[in-house]
Amino acid sequence: MPGVAGNEVLALQLARRSVRRFGPRPVTDEELSALVAAAQSAPTSSNLQPWSVVAVRDPDRKARLAALAGNQAFVAQAPLFLVWVADLSRARRLAAGAGVELAATEYLETTLIGFVDTALAAQNAVLAASSLGLGSVFVGAIRNHPAEVAAELGLPPHAVATFGLAVGTPDPDEPAGVKPRLPPAAVLHRERYDAAADEHISAYDERLAAYNAHYGLAGNWSSRVLARLRGPESMAGRHVLRQTLEALGLPSR
Amino acid sequence: MPGVAGNEVLALQLARRSVRRFGPRPVTDEELSALVAAAQSAPTSSNLQPWSVVAVRDPDRKARLAALAGNQAFVAQAPLFLVWVADLSRARRLAAGAGVELAATEYLETTLIGFVDTALAAQNAVLAASSLGLGSVFVGAIRNHPAEVAAELGLPPHAVATFGLAVGTPDPDEPAGVKPRLPPAAVLHRERYDAAADEHISAYDERLAAYNAHYGLAGNWSSRVLARLRGPESMAGRHVLRQTLEALGLPSR
Repeated sequence: MPGVAGNEVLALQLARRSVRRFGPRPVTDEELSALVAAAQSAPTSSNLQPWSVVAVRDPDRKARLAALAGNQAFVAQAPLFLVWVADLSRARRLAAGAGVELAATEYLETTLIGFVDTALAAQNAVLAASSLGLGSVFVGAIRNHPAEVAAELGLPPHAVATFGLAVGTPDPDEPAGVKPRLPPAAVLHRERYDAAADEHISAYDERLAAYNAHYGLAGNWSSRVLARLRGPESMAGRHVLRQTLEALGLPSR
Repeated sequence: MPGVAGNEVLALQLARRSVRRFGPRPVTDEELSALVAAAQSAPTSSNLQPWSVVAVRDPDRKARLAALAGNQAFVAQAPLFLVWVADLSRARRLAAGAGVELAATEYLETTLIGFVDTALAAQNAVLAASSLGLGSVFVGAIRNHPAEVAAELGLPPHAVATFGLAVGTPDPDEPAGVKPRLPPAAVLHRERYDAAADEHISAYDERLAAYNAHYGLAGNWSSRVLARLRGPESMAGRHVLRQTLEALGLPSR
């Protein structure tokens, strides 16, 4: 029976950090194939496989995507930028060819399946990248301007970019560490949910404030969560995402 | 530089299959802790960590959840059933304590972050389980009756069960294999999306029809996708998920 001690997969998972500065080495096609194979091996609801991925290496396109994604320079600096797409268009094309309706794609449930299954796949790619010595970071800001991203990538209707993933060899000089998380007791409940688990947050606030200060950042966890979720003004334009998704063919009925 | 050949993480990912029959050995607390630690090490948008997990071992509760999740007996048979919760209630409690608004939680964008970040975490747990010799399968049917599941687990407002994960030692006699996926060329696009990738679907349809037939199931991929997404009647009640999420405090403005 494999155990926890000395488990290399667990060790790799626990050592993961976001990488936003990359060395010059390109990501090879063999590595890209491995990331996609890992992604495809993730679970998917009813085997729908409702996602696609667009691998972007062209410097000009990366620069345009960086501008669309909150002007984050590391998007252009990464040798490979993967755009993960919740893709119901494949099923829609099948339905059109077969002359049948596909009304389930009008509902929020199906849009959520698209996002969730894309996430399951992408997280497998993240760990596969780690196993190959590659670093990565997700880019949710690709949702700041979904219509412009769809145009840049030639996405058909019913296909929407959910998040990007910048991939490359980590620059060892990047000032960044493994960010501490909430104490396990704050997120793990047994048999029934217990809001008293929140008692572990104050110790975490202290720990994260110290971590942030080490990297020149202010605030603890609570203050940053409250600022991030304050309202439309803290959402970088994503407060209209429901309407944009509907216009792009992923409605939320 | 670690490579693709002989990479144990990739090998483990590619060998994953859904496990729906479990041996009698319990999942230990040490293993559960490892799964949660792996989950917590996954990326999360702005470090929001908007999820919780409820570990269910009580046989009666598992049986009730199995009934709510499409009467799938393996939910009760698994020694451990993890219910992954998109949890904005923690942030809401912080906000209430601080006397501030948290209006971003009214928007679809934030609900999607809740579901996506929960999925990233859960997928890490899936692979951690594999590394420990445990099998698992996701249970999307936990969304068939979200309000009843919330009541069973005592979930507070703004916390919703996204999917379950049945975990245990695989029964080696289960008739199941690693399900083939779409050819990589059908899902991987370079620089821009190319719908001509659909040309790879027909070969996959033949392959999956043969796989299904081996396990006594009818249909190829296309026919099953079209049946699954036909309309509300194929959604096991989840066509009202948007309204239910809103009632439970995860609206989609």
